[in-house]
Amino acid sequence: MNDDGYSDEPTRVSQLVREFLEGQSGALVGADGNAQAVLTVGADAKDDCAVYEINKPAMLVVGSDYVRGPKFKLYEIGLLSNFDIGYYVVAANVSDIAAMGAAPIGVLTIVRYPNELSDAEFQTIMAGIHQAATDFGTLNVGGDIGQAERIILSGSAFGLSEPGKVLTRRGARPGDLLCLTGPCGVLGAAVTYFPRKEARGWKLPRQTEEELIESWRRPRARVAEGRILSSKPFATACQDTSDGLKATIEQLGEASGVGFEVMADSIPLDPRVVDVANIVGVDPLALSMSASADFQLCFTVGADDLEACRGEFSNSGLPFHVIGRAILKTGGTSLISRDGTSSSLPGVAWKHQRADVSELVTKAQP
Amino acid sequence: MNDDGYSDEPTRVSQLVREFLEGQSGALVGADGNAQAVLTVGADAKDDCAVYEINKPAMLVVGSDYVRGPKFKLYEIGLLSNFDIGYYVVAANVSDIAAMGAAPIGVLTIVRYPNELSDAEFQTIMAGIHQAATDFGTLNVGGDIGQAERIILSGSAFGLSEPGKVLTRRGARPGDLLCLTGPCGVLGAAVTYFPRKEARGWKLPRQTEEELIESWRRPRARVAEGRILSSKPFATACQDTSDGLKATIEQLGEASGVGFEVMADSIPLDPRVVDVANIVGVDPLALSMSASADFQLCFTVGADDLEACRGEFSNSGLPFHVIGRAILKTGGTSLISRDGTSSSLPGVAWKHQRADVSELVTKAQP
Repeated sequence: MNDDGYSDEPTRVSQLVREFLEGQSGALVGADGNAQAVLTVGADAKDDCAVYEINKPAMLVVGSDYVRGPKFKLYEIGLLSNFDIGYYVVAANVSDIAAMGAAPIGVLTIVRYPNELSDAEFQTIMAGIHQAATDFGTLNVGGDIGQAERIILSGSAFGLSEPGKVLTRRGARPGDLLCLTGPCGVLGAAVTYFPRKEARGWKLPRQTEEELIESWRRPRARVAEGRILSSKPFATACQDTSDGLKATIEQLGEASGVGFEVMADSIPLDPRVVDVANIVGVDPLALSMSASADFQLCFTVGADDLEACRGEFSNSGLPFHVIGRAILKTGGTSLISRDGTSSSLPGVAWKHQRADVSELVTKAQP
Repeated sequence: MNDDGYSDEPTRVSQLVREFLEGQSGALVGADGNAQAVLTVGADAKDDCAVYEINKPAMLVVGSDYVRGPKFKLYEIGLLSNFDIGYYVVAANVSDIAAMGAAPIGVLTIVRYPNELSDAEFQTIMAGIHQAATDFGTLNVGGDIGQAERIILSGSAFGLSEPGKVLTRRGARPGDLLCLTGPCGVLGAAVTYFPRKEARGWKLPRQTEEELIESWRRPRARVAEGRILSSKPFATACQDTSDGLKATIEQLGEASGVGFEVMADSIPLDPRVVDVANIVGVDPLALSMSASADFQLCFTVGADDLEACRGEFSNSGLPFHVIGRAILKTGGTSLISRDGTSSSLPGVAWKHQRADVSELVTKAQP
């Protein structure tokens, strides 16, 4: 214990997180139960690094997401717990692995905390990290624990896939169908609603509010969907929607060198997003497509493969929606409404911390 | 450009860092020119993740270090530049890979910055990251760039090694010789000296001061030494000295289940550490063994393998020092002085931000 009665880093590493790490060395990790890797040195070994033995040729996928920043407005106002933000950092990092179609074999997490964070609160963050790793079928294999002026959370994730089966953003061809695993905009709707709720006098039903918060508390990285897409040669391009649906479609188009016609009527709308849009006074479709870290997968499939792809998803009880199609790049990317008129995609793409959905709200209610 | 005349994240990602990333996709990475991996999707592809194709069974080594915290006192007082801290975050992360004997195949870097950081300053951080990656024979394959209240730097690193050839902390046996690639304590001496220099009226020669700062500006991760140690079956355990030599020896002993007799006269002393110790009024050996992120490697070698190991190092023009030997765990870890008397290891091991070398200084000059 240090002067303030809180533990120092060695104590936290060796005692408080032990229950979450013990016994992980030796675990089989990798794709579909057909283990491609063994975690030979886990976080429980307390070595310089974690070590995997990869027993055959494979694709290794790596990504890193810092999450403790402006996204956590709901934590600042007390709607998310320490457990929740630990859970989120893993979901955000695993989502990038899922978007490549890989099996997440591990995450590394950075957890820095101020002196005044108690051991119990610290352990709750680690419990959230552990729960998310378990839920997404992976392991927290280490990282960096230590002090800082405030809580800082960041992570990296690693995934394995079979040779040649990684999903990138680059392969969409004109004629491919644009697909989406589920409605977007829920997390964005929550950060649009709650911080302004009191000042604006907004009041949604209690259950709707709880579901909006829940979207942040237990976001789901679409690992299973990504694995289906990489296991069969259906998807020509794939990306997660962590920057919002508008940004995702635009980035997919740019990477693949195509345009998209997005059918307004085909975009699934989450009822909570519609509720928030109505109370805020913005277009529900615009809110659905704006900055929001929903971790859905947006992907393209050759028209001839659509039914086979839908069959694979159905076998796992998973849905997806066809929301448009790829066209020649010269056609650009646009929204096609029911009457056939064309316009640019609505919503505000994620750019940086000051250009979030508040831009929408400001326009609606200056 | 945003309201303040500084770029937003997409601008920084797409324009300001392009020169450091362009063309990396397709690069061969891995061990000793005998490529084990190809970076099929690099940061230049701007996808969800970077992707490596690993073309045969291999050991994958992963680690993560957050560095922008109390370590950067010298940055706060203007002695380190934005380039330098970018360089450091890569060195710190690659050092963990070197300590496992792996070839660093990539780093992911988190660079968060306040609104007021100009494009030029941001680009200088990225240039430091790029230079370090180049110096250590690896690539910066992505990460996370965006805004925060202040500069936050963190990283992860990945390495590949041959099956079964990873160096851990666990294999030291009684009788093995304890070895060290070079003197420790230089970076710790710098943070002991500079922040207190003015108040205490300390003044070292200008060249000594410059060399002390240089130790922070261009720390060297011992990749080559680690590769030698993993390529031949000499080393029984290995760790980098990023927590200081005292902590490293104690952790090696604990992980391997041995004690160590460390010969006081055999520990190499850096003349800059001696100079700082003398002006501060502390024992040079204690300062050499205290918290200091020198990134030397500390390893054990069977006595019969010592000459062969030295030969391999000599072939690459690299030195190491024998500083002691492993004994039975019941013997504990101690320092043996010239006259044969035994004492506990001197110095202050790194624990958390308030228990750094200032403890030494405080004892010396209350």
